[in-house]
Amino acid sequence: MRVLGIDPGLRNLGWGVIEARGSRLSHVANGIIHSEGADLAQRLKSLHAALTDVIERHAPDAAAVEQTFVNKDAVATLKLGQARGIALLAPAQAGLTVGEYAPNAVKKAVVGVGHAAKGQVEHMVRFQLPGVDLAGPDAADALAVAICHAHHLQSAGRLAAALKGST
Amino acid sequence: MRVLGIDPGLRNLGWGVIEARGSRLSHVANGIIHSEGADLAQRLKSLHAALTDVIERHAPDAAAVEQTFVNKDAVATLKLGQARGIALLAPAQAGLTVGEYAPNAVKKAVVGVGHAAKGQVEHMVRFQLPGVDLAGPDAADALAVAICHAHHLQSAGRLAAALKGST
Repeated sequence: MRVLGIDPGLRNLGWGVIEARGSRLSHVANGIIHSEGADLAQRLKSLHAALTDVIERHAPDAAAVEQTFVNKDAVATLKLGQARGIALLAPAQAGLTVGEYAPNAVKKAVVGVGHAAKGQVEHMVRFQLPGVDLAGPDAADALAVAICHAHHLQSAGRLAAALKGST
Repeated sequence: MRVLGIDPGLRNLGWGVIEARGSRLSHVANGIIHSEGADLAQRLKSLHAALTDVIERHAPDAAAVEQTFVNKDAVATLKLGQARGIALLAPAQAGLTVGEYAPNAVKKAVVGVGHAAKGQVEHMVRFQLPGVDLAGPDAADALAVAICHAHHLQSAGRLAAALKGST
């Protein structure tokens, strides 16, 4: 199963695709989309087009987006919300269900603790996806979201199988 | 010239289309889009599809979106940001430039003062677009945004004509 993870941002949107076979994970691709355009609407349009292109090229079976950290700066939160709207829209338009994970849930899935430092996440992403060439920190975060979602789907799958076996 | 105004919201997105001929304005259509879907991504997809449909049906030449009021609730700001991303994306994808106006600028254009009450805006929208049948408060706000944008484009046009005449 191919899983797409997205770390949304208006200037830099990180994305990462992994392949999950049972508990084995492998890296497929990762990158960072830089929005372009004279105004906000044009930048959102360029984000959407580039993300739609990533989905078409790598054909994931599932997608997940990091829940934006709600900070104290309302203007920054609003900007992030706009980019996040695009990050949720594009996979939904491709027919994918889109998971959402809080940053702490992503860190817990990848590092084992919810309050890991940014460097630890990148370290564990490299460890779990040997040989990965990271496009940058936002791409590492996106791969971490994909790993978190793969774990979640596998647990849900095992649970469903166990429940089926017990009936 | 046809102008589309949008008052973005995740649950209820107001839209209104007016025709501007010189300083004469007339109502074309207005409505409210209610997002549907089991999760956030599905709701954003339904908003986008319905707004794209409005644009195709009414073929506006220009569009404008109200600048979301940044309130103290970060979670509400983030939700509004996500809907706003869709409100900016759909007209940009249709090749329209998208104006943005702060609520006070909209009130000033429609009522004459920046701190008008909500009822005053609706009253002046009804006055400026005689016979209009409003789908609700969000649709009235969207028509107010369209009126504001039409005024702005007309002023810009007169300025351009005056500058052309003076050369």
